[in-house]
Amino acid sequence: MINTLYLPELREMLAEHNSLELREFCMALHPGRTAEFMEGLSAHEAFEVLQFAAPTLRAEIFSYFDETAQMSILLEEDDKQVAELITSLPADDAVDLLSELPDDRVEHLLALIPAPDRRDIRRLQNFAEGTAGALMTTEAACLDERLTVREALEKLSRQAEQLETIYYIYVVDDTNHLKGVVSTRKLVSSIGKSSIRITELMETDLIVARASDDQQTVTQKVAKFNLLAIPVVDSDGHMLGIITHDDVIDVVMEEATEDAQRIAAVDPLEDSYLRTGILTLSWKRGIWLGILFFPGMFTVISLKHYEGELEKFVWLTWFLPLIMGCGGNSGSQSATLIITSMAMGDVRVSDWFKIMIRELSTGLLLGSGLGLIGMIPALLFAPTVLAALIIPLTILLVVTCGTLTGSLLPMFFQRSGWDPALMSNPFVAGINDICAILLYVNVARWLL
Amino acid sequence: MINTLYLPELREMLAEHNSLELREFCMALHPGRTAEFMEGLSAHEAFEVLQFAAPTLRAEIFSYFDETAQMSILLEEDDKQVAELITSLPADDAVDLLSELPDDRVEHLLALIPAPDRRDIRRLQNFAEGTAGALMTTEAACLDERLTVREALEKLSRQAEQLETIYYIYVVDDTNHLKGVVSTRKLVSSIGKSSIRITELMETDLIVARASDDQQTVTQKVAKFNLLAIPVVDSDGHMLGIITHDDVIDVVMEEATEDAQRIAAVDPLEDSYLRTGILTLSWKRGIWLGILFFPGMFTVISLKHYEGELEKFVWLTWFLPLIMGCGGNSGSQSATLIITSMAMGDVRVSDWFKIMIRELSTGLLLGSGLGLIGMIPALLFAPTVLAALIIPLTILLVVTCGTLTGSLLPMFFQRSGWDPALMSNPFVAGINDICAILLYVNVARWLL
Repeated sequence: MINTLYLPELREMLAEHNSLELREFCMALHPGRTAEFMEGLSAHEAFEVLQFAAPTLRAEIFSYFDETAQMSILLEEDDKQVAELITSLPADDAVDLLSELPDDRVEHLLALIPAPDRRDIRRLQNFAEGTAGALMTTEAACLDERLTVREALEKLSRQAEQLETIYYIYVVDDTNHLKGVVSTRKLVSSIGKSSIRITELMETDLIVARASDDQQTVTQKVAKFNLLAIPVVDSDGHMLGIITHDDVIDVVMEEATEDAQRIAAVDPLEDSYLRTGILTLSWKRGIWLGILFFPGMFTVISLKHYEGELEKFVWLTWFLPLIMGCGGNSGSQSATLIITSMAMGDVRVSDWFKIMIRELSTGLLLGSGLGLIGMIPALLFAPTVLAALIIPLTILLVVTCGTLTGSLLPMFFQRSGWDPALMSNPFVAGINDICAILLYVNVARWLL
Repeated sequence: MINTLYLPELREMLAEHNSLELREFCMALHPGRTAEFMEGLSAHEAFEVLQFAAPTLRAEIFSYFDETAQMSILLEEDDKQVAELITSLPADDAVDLLSELPDDRVEHLLALIPAPDRRDIRRLQNFAEGTAGALMTTEAACLDERLTVREALEKLSRQAEQLETIYYIYVVDDTNHLKGVVSTRKLVSSIGKSSIRITELMETDLIVARASDDQQTVTQKVAKFNLLAIPVVDSDGHMLGIITHDDVIDVVMEEATEDAQRIAAVDPLEDSYLRTGILTLSWKRGIWLGILFFPGMFTVISLKHYEGELEKFVWLTWFLPLIMGCGGNSGSQSATLIITSMAMGDVRVSDWFKIMIRELSTGLLLGSGLGLIGMIPALLFAPTVLAALIIPLTILLVVTCGTLTGSLLPMFFQRSGWDPALMSNPFVAGINDICAILLYVNVARWLL
């Protein structure tokens, strides 16, 4: 689905060094669209076109290129031009890109970047991935607490081009402590009272993130308080940077995808599906299939153990997959409900008792319903009505066991500091498979 | 985890009608925090406190209350005060709340709302849930194309208090056609050139949503182009409203949670887990467990069909759950990977051939690996080495069948216009269970 509409024209303009039209092409559309129209060009041609855009616009268009094109530009194009491009990127994006390059290339490029930008990049590189510090950009609109509304607007109008967002203005003191925040909206609506100080407009009840906070905690805060950006401070309250709404949306999407993959027992992919190599993909799936294989071995051993019973009542084995399936499905339903609810902040570990009662009731209801349906094939294949009763009774117990383990295990893992999305599936599946066999054989023994 | 810190003081202030301190309480903190401190109050008390806040702030604090409290206020409090509250809410939020109230109450309240606000609400009520029209708010900053920068700033400064967001200014002509967009950032940075027209600053390559667009398409656009808000137009390009970043984050979170729940075969909950009644919850899970029960019945019938083989080689039944588990797990891994990748826009149905080849290779790799591990218990329990070979060979075939059905079915459903997250799980599970039994028995027949 590559847009080839402009490709011949673009190549012709490049061949002719038609700077007027190339500049016009870069400026006419939304940077994201411009990037789309360049998808059919080679990375080298695309970079040539970008040279005709002003540095800020160039960085913006570049940020919409796909990762392969970005990497090949950073690796292969002229050092000076690449360094200039990195300088124009928001510092957080620059750090993300540099983290994919070989170390010697990074050092080489950093040496060509002006000292203040280099310092910003170095600082951000120190924060661990997945923390607020790694997500933030240093380009925030920070203003001195002594400014008036007029001075603030003037200062902003000079800074606005360089900043990633100016929708909140952060008020700091001489030592860069964050004192308050003024929204641009408030500043604009106070144009009539332009000689009052910005400290009179600012909110002092601040919602902030610590640089060491987990990125998911931060995005939950931003979503909860409907913020456009959240300031990041160190443990002494010094202003370090901001995390903007677009990075928050990216994190929310990324975390949701990762959680869904973990629930399905896939170690989250770092890259998109089609860009992940077959070996990496197989490894990320294989480790979990391997781990899930072990509870499977236990089912072999338990069935072998009940060899005598199964040989006496062969018809019982026909129902085995059905019964284990009921337990597995209800367990994975409960686990997913609890994991997603905890991720959304709707459920807390402290609610465990309430949840246990709810899941017990749900399990009994679902188990009775499925048991009733299960009674039909049971009556067809079982030798006596009493024997047929084994099936609905086992289903009732197995489903209830599924809802209970499925709901309680994720909370247990959350409490123990393990990722519930990652850990719950294998354990819930394993425990339910074994329970299903044990319950089945013992109900059968008791009834026959 | 209700914050009870201020409750006694708040109740005392209410008893004393201490308007000074109550007004101060409402204004001192971020509205979201203020709402948190009021969680322990009854809905009636909370509404009493809100009367001491200015209308806009009152609406803002109210929007952070939980849904139960909001509903009880809308249903039970004084009609005039409630109508005033609804008037102060952004129109999209007002519509969402009204949709939960009984019709006669809605009509009664609407009659008390000023005509222009009522018109906005009526207009939004016409859009189907899940469309851009239902998600948008009508309170956008629209300015006439003839204004200069200075006039625009002045006009904005008067409107800013009423608008939900002023971070983009939409330029419209006399008949309300959307002509372009100017970011506040650009406007602020042009304060020095205050007599030029805003049309000279505006972007004309607009990223817009149609009112009838699906909300997921719109949020993907906002995420892709890193927008703070997206304008919504009708089919003739008339400006209708905007969708703001906070609604986008909510939709992204909601859709991700719903997808995860669908993948785990739960019909998505409309409310949070703890607020959903046991009967509703059981129903939303029960229908899918019921649907999944039918492929389970087929396993009973096929096993019954192979009665003879299973009685001759009882040890084969011990491995049945293990083998079916391998197929089920690898199938659900593939399905989840493809469903999440399609939701993120990383994979398209047109990539099906590439994906099939990838999944075939992955399946063969994973199947060989698991088959090798499976050889160990097979050698322990099978009568001969040749018989033991049944297990790894079947695992190889079943896992490959799992990865193929797991990846191709979601794309088939997507193509056919069905929700892949909803449909894939039961079909992948069902097909894999039956395939596992067929492959198992036929491999055994062939080898023995």
